[in-house]
Amino acid sequence: MKPLQVGLLGIGTVGSGTFKVLQRNQEEIRHRAGRGIEITMVADLDVARAKAVVGEGVKVVGDAREVIANPQIDIVIELIGGYGVAKTLVLEAIAAGKHVVTANKALLAVHGTEIFAAAHAKGVMVAFEAAVAGGIPIIKALREGLTANSIQWIAGIINGTTNFILSEMRDKGLDFDTVLKEAQRLGYAEADPTFDIEGVDAAHKATLMSAIAFGIPVQFDKAHVEGITKLAAQDIKYAEQLGYRIKLLGITKRSAKGIELRVHPALVPSKRLLANVEGAMNAVVVNGDAVGTTLYYGKGAGSEPTASAVIADLVDITRLHTADTEHRVPHLAFHPEAILANKGDLPIVPMSEVVTSYYLRLRVADEAGVLARVTSLLAEAGISIDAVLQREADEVGGEGSTQTDLIILTHDTREGTLDEVLARVQGLPSVLAPIVRIRKEELS
Amino acid sequence: MKPLQVGLLGIGTVGSGTFKVLQRNQEEIRHRAGRGIEITMVADLDVARAKAVVGEGVKVVGDAREVIANPQIDIVIELIGGYGVAKTLVLEAIAAGKHVVTANKALLAVHGTEIFAAAHAKGVMVAFEAAVAGGIPIIKALREGLTANSIQWIAGIINGTTNFILSEMRDKGLDFDTVLKEAQRLGYAEADPTFDIEGVDAAHKATLMSAIAFGIPVQFDKAHVEGITKLAAQDIKYAEQLGYRIKLLGITKRSAKGIELRVHPALVPSKRLLANVEGAMNAVVVNGDAVGTTLYYGKGAGSEPTASAVIADLVDITRLHTADTEHRVPHLAFHPEAILANKGDLPIVPMSEVVTSYYLRLRVADEAGVLARVTSLLAEAGISIDAVLQREADEVGGEGSTQTDLIILTHDTREGTLDEVLARVQGLPSVLAPIVRIRKEELS
Repeated sequence: MKPLQVGLLGIGTVGSGTFKVLQRNQEEIRHRAGRGIEITMVADLDVARAKAVVGEGVKVVGDAREVIANPQIDIVIELIGGYGVAKTLVLEAIAAGKHVVTANKALLAVHGTEIFAAAHAKGVMVAFEAAVAGGIPIIKALREGLTANSIQWIAGIINGTTNFILSEMRDKGLDFDTVLKEAQRLGYAEADPTFDIEGVDAAHKATLMSAIAFGIPVQFDKAHVEGITKLAAQDIKYAEQLGYRIKLLGITKRSAKGIELRVHPALVPSKRLLANVEGAMNAVVVNGDAVGTTLYYGKGAGSEPTASAVIADLVDITRLHTADTEHRVPHLAFHPEAILANKGDLPIVPMSEVVTSYYLRLRVADEAGVLARVTSLLAEAGISIDAVLQREADEVGGEGSTQTDLIILTHDTREGTLDEVLARVQGLPSVLAPIVRIRKEELS
Repeated sequence: MKPLQVGLLGIGTVGSGTFKVLQRNQEEIRHRAGRGIEITMVADLDVARAKAVVGEGVKVVGDAREVIANPQIDIVIELIGGYGVAKTLVLEAIAAGKHVVTANKALLAVHGTEIFAAAHAKGVMVAFEAAVAGGIPIIKALREGLTANSIQWIAGIINGTTNFILSEMRDKGLDFDTVLKEAQRLGYAEADPTFDIEGVDAAHKATLMSAIAFGIPVQFDKAHVEGITKLAAQDIKYAEQLGYRIKLLGITKRSAKGIELRVHPALVPSKRLLANVEGAMNAVVVNGDAVGTTLYYGKGAGSEPTASAVIADLVDITRLHTADTEHRVPHLAFHPEAILANKGDLPIVPMSEVVTSYYLRLRVADEAGVLARVTSLLAEAGISIDAVLQREADEVGGEGSTQTDLIILTHDTREGTLDEVLARVQGLPSVLAPIVRIRKEELS
């Protein structure tokens, strides 16, 4: 049988890796897929660079529409990124009856509903393993491996840049700005790192996982997104003393009022495997009612790790595209009618309704009765305390200091309730600086 | 569309879990699979107990052949276990045109070639996610998620009983026999624990992973199988002091001479996530040339975790059974012709040809020159030393002792070479007891 012909749109880091791995392992891949898979056409604005990557024998064009219009092409890989032209091209490829593979988390998290509906109507597959956690087959695990389960929650380190920064901050006791510059120098952070450090990238990925796990539409606009830019080295240190590490987590969770979807820094118990995921690595923990807790770990970015996911999608399409389209693995794990039905029953809950526990750091006057005043306000609101760490004033502010840090870990409480109490605590004359509040996730 | 009808052979722990989870999550599962999946018939020797589990509305019979003969049944789940009647029934179900789901690692590791050939000829699927690492979707990750890769090696904690025993030995400093009794009391070890503690169960699972990873036939008869019964508490302690933990690993690895397939205790660096997998949990590390190192963690046994894998297979069959049988996901990841072709190119290598590093413990006379004599014999054979730990005689044998322990970590060496040298070292008059030799895997 003749090889499947693939057209590649955008041959940067991931595209080059895809081309290289597909060539290097072509024999093994053919033995797995049952037929050859060949990139026969590439579109890139930089035609010369693209030609240098693919060499002779592959047609390189500057206009992506030439690839889509080619009737020989069975599958289009979109590696352009962003919401703009990528969206138009993906929809055109679908309209032309091509299967699509994409690593574009931003596009799918925002426009997934429209794209998957178009693909479903046309009977083509849109595969996106590479969009979440790079080479880790987490989409496959959620969509196919854990189908028996009512998924309870997912918590993941799904952005390598921020995990690298947090690991360095902890290891070296440095603050955020210093480490960010180091990360940029080493290539772990981009020149404009906003999407990574503000949590947007992680929120795109968490949005996709929430849809697949719970059978709801992608709803990036309803995600709570908080980055790591305000994290202080001292909070990482205090957390460590209390037996926790701070990680930027993408969390989605089934709760009484719907589905939580949130990205923010969180304290994680040091003994959890997730807390020990260091550097630029990714890991996702999935809890299902039957399977319990499972974890998936690996490289979340990079040329060949991401290419590994792109090619796995190519093989999947080769193996499965002949299956009955009404039953074939649905794009978002659930069949479209079920997703529509769930939308009302499973709304994304506002942050004020989220129930979790908290780390609080208060800069207070070093005087009698402060702890009592703070804890009694918490107690009045029904917030119970798990642990308190009170520092010696001398240690915190130097010899003769009249200020100290009070660190409080709470038990589970409704975030709205906590916020109200914290406003009152903030008003106490002994509280000398804005209260630092970081969520704590036990993941048990 | 009418629900797929499933017949269940053997309703013990996993069978009951499968029935329960399929009922509890039936709506979600139907929304994922695109149609209902129902167990409508159960065969078990203990008809009364089976009836008590499934209640009214499900036909319970004592003879499995009644299930296989029922033309209404689309899929047969085999949860009887063992090589005997299970083999006959699986082959009969295939011959009757039923898809088969099984958790039977022993059966597939020994008779997989015959069973998969029969299924291929008949055009039915045989799914076995539950056979390896319980609820962790590791078969799916290897067979579908990592298809881009030339897999380099796999190392897994794939037997919960032995991992529980090793965790307890380390935590409490107890020896094997004591902990085994404790494990039996707690239900973590069976009354006859031979298959677990001698490494046979892990070898069945490693055999299946080796076939899927490398495209070779299942060859349990060529696996090297070594259990944990000879492990001493003191080796766990010394390993800890050197920065390692001892785990029973199932390993399969691509090497210059073919494929390694071995189960044995091994030192693993304490900083690796795999070393921190405690209690009855399972975890598998997979290294591929494109993706790098990935890890999959979760419960490797138990009623509902294993049921999670069985049901995932049912959903897979529902979604995929209409795909072209020539391209549909192959049972062992590779198409049968490729597996046949690889058999000659990728033989299982004998242990004497395995290259790895070692932990050696020598009980020696506490006298000058012993270390020099031992290390010069190693050096003559080209074996270089990574670390040496020499204990004070008093610490080892008590006040006035004239014996001590010499612990040596080697760099990589061919096992056959090491064995020859160790025979010579054993002959030294200063070496007072049989040398303890445990393999060391850096997993980097």
